[in-house]
This record gives sequence, C-alpha cells and structure tokens, in this order.
Amino acid sequence: MSLTSKPLNATMDEPKNIRLILEYDGTRYHGWQRQKTDITVQGVLEDSIRTMVGEPVVLIGSGRTDAGVHALNQVCNFITRSQIEPDSMRRGLNSLVPDDIFIKQEEYVPLDFHSRYSVRSKTYEYRIWNRKEANVFLRNYSWHIRGDLDIDIMKAGLSILIGRYDFSSFKSSGSTNKDPVRNILLAELHGPSEGILILLFEADGFLRHMVRNLTGSLVDLGKGKLSLEGFKEILLSRQRDAVGIKAPPQGLFLKDVRY
Amino acid sequence: MSLTSKPLNATMDEPKNIRLILEYDGTRYHGWQRQKTDITVQGVLEDSIRTMVGEPVVLIGSGRTDAGVHALNQVCNFITRSQIEPDSMRRGLNSLVPDDIFIKQEEYVPLDFHSRYSVRSKTYEYRIWNRKEANVFLRNYSWHIRGDLDIDIMKAGLSILIGRYDFSSFKSSGSTNKDPVRNILLAELHGPSEGILILLFEADGFLRHMVRNLTGSLVDLGKGKLSLEGFKEILLSRQRDAVGIKAPPQGLFLKDVRY
Repeated sequence: MSLTSKPLNATMDEPKNIRLILEYDGTRYHGWQRQKTDITVQGVLEDSIRTMVGEPVVLIGSGRTDAGVHALNQVCNFITRSQIEPDSMRRGLNSLVPDDIFIKQEEYVPLDFHSRYSVRSKTYEYRIWNRKEANVFLRNYSWHIRGDLDIDIMKAGLSILIGRYDFSSFKSSGSTNKDPVRNILLAELHGPSEGILILLFEADGFLRHMVRNLTGSLVDLGKGKLSLEGFKEILLSRQRDAVGIKAPPQGLFLKDVRY
Repeated sequence: MSLTSKPLNATMDEPKNIRLILEYDGTRYHGWQRQKTDITVQGVLEDSIRTMVGEPVVLIGSGRTDAGVHALNQVCNFITRSQIEPDSMRRGLNSLVPDDIFIKQEEYVPLDFHSRYSVRSKTYEYRIWNRKEANVFLRNYSWHIRGDLDIDIMKAGLSILIGRYDFSSFKSSGSTNKDPVRNILLAELHGPSEGILILLFEADGFLRHMVRNLTGSLVDLGKGKLSLEGFKEILLSRQRDAVGIKAPPQGLFLKDVRY
C-alpha cells in the first residue's frame, strides 16, 4: 500500500491553476497590489488562500486597482498543488476574508491561463452623483458633481474616444507603460437615473489613471469648462500636461474582464 | 445710539426654534441618542451646533434610531438665541460634521414645534438583498436573505398589518412604551428590483424594534417557516415571546417624518 501511494500522491499533487472572480469594496484598501505595511486586496486574499491551502501562493490579478477603487468582477489566478476542490475553497475563503471582499466564482483553468497576459478587454464604470445635495450613502461610491452637466456634449466627447489612440494625454504622470496606444471599444454614458450618471469604458487595456483622467475631462466638458474641440486637442496632443482634473478614485469600478 | 441698541439686541436675541432635516449613514454610530462615551448622531450634531452658535444646545429628534440604523430624512430641532441664519448655519454645520451626516434642510419653525411630540406619522423602509451571492456594497445597507422568498404571501402579511393594533408581540423585550397600540397607515412591499426588496411601513408611531421584528416575521412568512394564520396569531396574541427572528439593524432606514 505504501508503495502504490507515492505515484497516486504525485498525481494528486500536480500543480493546478485556479481562477477567482471577486467583488470588493475598495474603500478600506490601499489598492489591489500587496504592500509591506498597508492593507491591500491582494495581500488579504493571498494570506487567506495560504491559510486554506497550507502553502504560500502568488495571486496574479487582471490588473491593479488604486486605493479606494472598487471591483464588481476582478479576475485573478494562482497555481497550487492543493487538492481542495475550488467550490469548497471558495466557501472557505469567503468565511476567511473580511466582508468587503466576496469571491463570486472559483474554478480550475488551463495551466497557461494568466489573469493579466490573457486579457482581451476590460470594462470600467465610473459613477457620478449629480445632485446639488450630498448623498451620504454614495460618498464612497461616486464623485459628487453639484452643478448641471451637459449630457449631450459628454456623449459627443465619449464617441470621439472610440478607436485606437495614443492615450499619453490621459496617463498618470508617473506611468511607466511603454506603449501608450489603446483601443477603446466602447465609451458610453448611462443616465441620469435618480441622480446617478454612469460612464462606461471598454478597451483592450488602460493606462494607469486613464479612466479617471478621461472622466475628469469629460466632466469639464459637461460643465462647459472645456469645448469639444479642446477635448479633441488634448487627446491628439499626447501631452500629459494638457489634461485637466483627475476624477477621484471612489467613483471607479472595475466591471468586467474578458478573456 | 447705545441707548437704542439695547432693545434692538433684545429682539435679536429672542429664542428661536430651528428645525433640521438630515440624512445619515448609521454604520459608524451607536445610534441616535447621545451617550457618555460612544459616538452617536445626536452627540456629533449637538457638538457641531454648539461650535456654531457658541452655546450648548439640546437637540430633540423625532425619535431614536438604533446602532447601525440609517436615516434618509431624520427631523430634529433645537432652541437657540443665535442670530446665524439657518441657511448659513446649515452650510457651516455641513462643513463641521463628518461626511456620513448631511443636513439637507434647516429653517425656523414656530416655538411650539417639537420634533417628537408633533409627529403625525413616520415612515420606515427596510431593505433586503435577496440573491444567493453576497453584495459587498450593500453589506451595511441591507439584510442578506439567500433563499427564495414568496413575495405574494409577504404582501398578504403586510396587508393584515394595516390598521390599529396592539403591537405588543412585535415590541422590543426591554420596551418601556406604556401604550402598545399603533395605527399602521401603510405597509407595502416594493420589488424585487435588481435583487432588492423594500418593505415600507408608515404609522402614527412605532414601538422600539417594531419594524425589525415585523420584518423578521414577514421574512419567515416568505421563507415558508410561518403561515399567514401563524402570523395573524402572533399579532393577535400580544405576547412578545410569540415573535420569531428580529431583522438586523443595517437594513433599516428612517425615511420620512410627517407633522
């Protein structure tokens, strides 16, 4: 029996690739990426997975989210030799992680699946609370814009963005992306519905702070601080300095990742 | 000039009654009522008003809300000799209070207005998140019920409640209300809409924990744990011990107060 158990174990212990889909409220977190001292989503998840599987794991996310940014469907994966079935692990993890993180789905994927490299497109949604009065329930989940916004000009601005552009104007000042060209597949405005405006952006990828910088300029458009011509000029200038205000993190949600 | 200024000042310093309408996220608070050590909504507001008007004030609320319970339109009033116009005071207060409290309206009312004694009716709303999966964004703003709920039987239960009853069965075990008779004017279920069910209750007043106890039994009805006959029996028994589960505080919102 002890002789046959070895090859059996060897088979059981083959490395497996596990993919998670999760929702999190980013309010309390210093973003996705693990840091030495500050609490992060990746850090909390890696620690909980380690508790479950009994070995350290490296969790690969579809991309980072900044401090205060939320996720409706963040995707991540890790390699493990653990024999725990994904569905049992999901239940175990959900009892271990704080209640501002929820693992919606967990499953085996082929070993060559990589949450970041395999991405085909990502969708972000930016939520604006557009009433004069504050909304205490949306304070951590929207950007409060008090004044009137011209929805039509914002939609016109969004339609300009669809296509392949060098988005250097809208990248973060400290961005290290070498290739600033991205293909925006979808750029839409929904609402206003009960005071809430939603900006939707789908692209093959996003530069750091790109959605927040785009949203900032689109709001400037809506306020009449920027003309449609001015907006086009900023985009085509490919100059980081040309851009205006950056929208705050708490209105931003990573909505979907496609593979 | 100095002779005429005295009577003028005397007029300016006449006591005035000021009413506030406010919204708060109760998550962080140990309820409405001021306490010695714990943070409460009344405590935070009284301290901020004192800073504005330069004298201690007693803030009278339309009623207490428990720890974790929210308000969309809580009403309160205080008497002051301050000459600060309500609208200026409102702006000042909003810059002083934490961002989970927002004063929506502030105005002079007749001296005999009393936020609690003058109430004609109050409306509470109870929010249920009724999907199998958790929702991290609603964790502090709803009760998560995973299983299916029979909406029709819940509506039938609600319709039974309309009218004047002795609600002793649904009061808090430690309730000190002498008269347990209340008149429910409205009891409705809205939704489900995107996973959210809303129970609405309007009455001339509520006993302590009454809405949460009613909601608990209505959910038992919806789950099939309680029959409509059983629900009626609990109501008519006027026995506190007859009632089942009490819904948790975070789903409850004080929606409106009528005078």
